[in-house]
Amino acid sequence: MIDVYSWATPNGHKIHIMLEECGYRLGKDWLAHPIDIGAGDQFKPDFLKISPNNKIPAIVDPNGPDGKPISIFESGAILLYLAAKTGKFLPKSTRAKYDVLQWLMFQMGGLGPMLGQNHHFRTYAPEKIEYAINRYTNEAKRLYGVLDRQLSKHPFIAGKEYSIADIAIFPWTRNWKNQGIEIDEFPHFKKWFEKISARPAVRRGVEVLTNLRKPLTDDKARDLLFGASQYQKRK
Amino acid sequence: MIDVYSWATPNGHKIHIMLEECGYRLGKDWLAHPIDIGAGDQFKPDFLKISPNNKIPAIVDPNGPDGKPISIFESGAILLYLAAKTGKFLPKSTRAKYDVLQWLMFQMGGLGPMLGQNHHFRTYAPEKIEYAINRYTNEAKRLYGVLDRQLSKHPFIAGKEYSIADIAIFPWTRNWKNQGIEIDEFPHFKKWFEKISARPAVRRGVEVLTNLRKPLTDDKARDLLFGASQYQKRK
Repeated sequence: MIDVYSWATPNGHKIHIMLEECGYRLGKDWLAHPIDIGAGDQFKPDFLKISPNNKIPAIVDPNGPDGKPISIFESGAILLYLAAKTGKFLPKSTRAKYDVLQWLMFQMGGLGPMLGQNHHFRTYAPEKIEYAINRYTNEAKRLYGVLDRQLSKHPFIAGKEYSIADIAIFPWTRNWKNQGIEIDEFPHFKKWFEKISARPAVRRGVEVLTNLRKPLTDDKARDLLFGASQYQKRK
Repeated sequence: MIDVYSWATPNGHKIHIMLEECGYRLGKDWLAHPIDIGAGDQFKPDFLKISPNNKIPAIVDPNGPDGKPISIFESGAILLYLAAKTGKFLPKSTRAKYDVLQWLMFQMGGLGPMLGQNHHFRTYAPEKIEYAINRYTNEAKRLYGVLDRQLSKHPFIAGKEYSIADIAIFPWTRNWKNQGIEIDEFPHFKKWFEKISARPAVRRGVEVLTNLRKPLTDDKARDLLFGASQYQKRK
């Protein structure tokens, strides 16, 4: 039983989808332990032990590489771990593998952080700051354009096969309406998006823990996520 | 001869340092081709072919896995490729390997993007926006704190050995003065920083292409990096 410490956010969805795609079933092969980031669960000492950057998701696999438990944080590293453990969604051939790894890194280093900032300034920030909203909305459009061009040439993000690059990118692109994106301007992306959305494991994955999610806009959640509690000194 | 398309920025430094650490020598084993991001080189068709996200660095190794040339973009993917090619700075044992991968992902997904936003709002943005400067300066302090706690327990970022996690993180942390960081508040980080700075390959790596770097604050560079040129529609 793989323990997943997570929440229904894009980085959480990635792992929930990956596990279901790999044939693990929620409740039977893996458990989703809610880390309520609007209630401060991410700062509890037990969670910080496995996720020192106080971010979800993190996993504990009791059956690690040497038979002992292993814990891993950072969604990109967890995807690589599960791909290696199951032999799925990361090609064996070196060339195809690096096609996947570079698009996985594109998600980790660009798409995720920049769409995250866009969401912050469009939705969470207490003041509407035009400069920041324009900056990140423009960047979001640029990034959807990069995906659209890539998907005009290939059926999946990294080429011919569905991979952890698709699994990493899909959850971040779901919120296009709130990102200021007109999906019809990106027809190749749209086609891919609809294809991925229809996968049974993806449909199961994106539902995990969603019943617990609350709007992160009350004062306590704001303070925990963007205010003094987030930034207080920790040992 | 490995061709590196790059610029003297943190993501460029990573690859320049890694190559020198692996025993490749600039001018003999690898070439640094300047992609002047303040002059728009990142939007030229030949560069976009190997770096579809119009970011540096990208590499072309003429001696790829199947004997044919391979190109890779995204600094994190390039580090993984060079580690696999040379057998250096990424441990073979699964457990130690994932210790490195999770901290590499921490750099790619958190440290790099967030320090990048901090630099933007502190240095490049045409208006001083207090909310954004506070947001990213607080996040920078939190991230240096995460590194400091990790380095209080281990000599290197991912444990006992110098790895691509150190190589990825170091260039992003060099600019601490401009990030609003008091380095003496992070003594374990400071000790590590001085240790890494003194490595001969690191000293060589951070100098690569620096003679070409200009302040990115003239109107043309601003437009290319943050304005309409960056965000114009591309095929």
